[in-house]
Amino acid sequence: MSTIPMERPELGDDEAAALIGLAARVRELAEATVLTAVGTAEAAAVAAEIEALTARLSAGRRDAPPFVPSGERRMDRQIGNPVTGALNPLAPPVGLTVSSDGIVRGEFTLGPVYEGPPSYVHGGVSAMVLDQVLGMAAAASGTPGMTATLETRYRRPTPLGVPLSVEAKASRVEGRKVYASGTICGPDGRVTVEATAMFIMPQRFVEHS
Amino acid sequence: MSTIPMERPELGDDEAAALIGLAARVRELAEATVLTAVGTAEAAAVAAEIEALTARLSAGRRDAPPFVPSGERRMDRQIGNPVTGALNPLAPPVGLTVSSDGIVRGEFTLGPVYEGPPSYVHGGVSAMVLDQVLGMAAAASGTPGMTATLETRYRRPTPLGVPLSVEAKASRVEGRKVYASGTICGPDGRVTVEATAMFIMPQRFVEHS
Repeated sequence: MSTIPMERPELGDDEAAALIGLAARVRELAEATVLTAVGTAEAAAVAAEIEALTARLSAGRRDAPPFVPSGERRMDRQIGNPVTGALNPLAPPVGLTVSSDGIVRGEFTLGPVYEGPPSYVHGGVSAMVLDQVLGMAAAASGTPGMTATLETRYRRPTPLGVPLSVEAKASRVEGRKVYASGTICGPDGRVTVEATAMFIMPQRFVEHS
Repeated sequence: MSTIPMERPELGDDEAAALIGLAARVRELAEATVLTAVGTAEAAAVAAEIEALTARLSAGRRDAPPFVPSGERRMDRQIGNPVTGALNPLAPPVGLTVSSDGIVRGEFTLGPVYEGPPSYVHGGVSAMVLDQVLGMAAAASGTPGMTATLETRYRRPTPLGVPLSVEAKASRVEGRKVYASGTICGPDGRVTVEATAMFIMPQRFVEHS
């Protein structure tokens, strides 16, 4: 159904650094856009300048987001990922580490572009972050997979603009299925959202491994 | 914990139109960023120009995203919403309608910035969209609330770059709790993701209504 290529070019270090810097500036621009109080003429003038910059970037355009060379973990390659990808202006991005016992952890802060109820993180954004982090915990267990089920339970509102922590771990593996669970905590350490998920490794990964 | 104001300024029609146009240009810029293949020098030059535009927009800066005047539905006010908000460059945005029988429907297409597994929509992005649409179905039933639980089940991969449809309806109301369910379908009409959720109306809404 899709003509998007599966294979991706890999960025060199210099190119990755330049594009990560570019994405960081676009992320700041997106926040400035939802908060700006400049007049309509100035908003239109800035919009026209942005259009010209988009044209400049599109002078060379790939069919799909590039990867970076494989590090320790396969999922780290996806620099365009909408949750963790430093190349993706939509991603906070959430930086994650994996401990030797398979626990995936990260700290992040969500600004006004992620707002749901006034002053709180959008419930769907929390679900998106947890899907990614639980998926990385599944991958860390040695069985990367696509999400089959995701259940999120909201214990209390998650505040915007303060440091949040996220943590997940795979609980068990059954053939191509991996179960994982995790939480988002506020700055006081209390759980705001918890999730459980099941991931299934696509057959093509099994064939190729 | 948060100093973000609950009350929001309301945009006039001209201001809303200008800012929506600006957000659309930033959305295109974000996509061009994840796909660009220009060299490092050009990426850095464009990044510097973006930084200057962010400074121009920040010459007037609000504490929180503005609203638009209340239309038929309270949730439509949130023009900065990360799923449906035309003012939010992170939102696709998903445009929704509510039928007289309370069914919330929308059509949308997700580009490369929403990619999870290569060529498919990120599972967390589907969960985020469903949380919003089920929440609007809950609101359409007369009991808007914050997400308490969200369960998503992935039936098959959701393709990028093709028209998707989303639909949700509230199933029952029990006091301050509303239950809703919904689906995302691919262009062939087959369900790719389905979800059920429970929303709870915050006590302050009950007091004020």
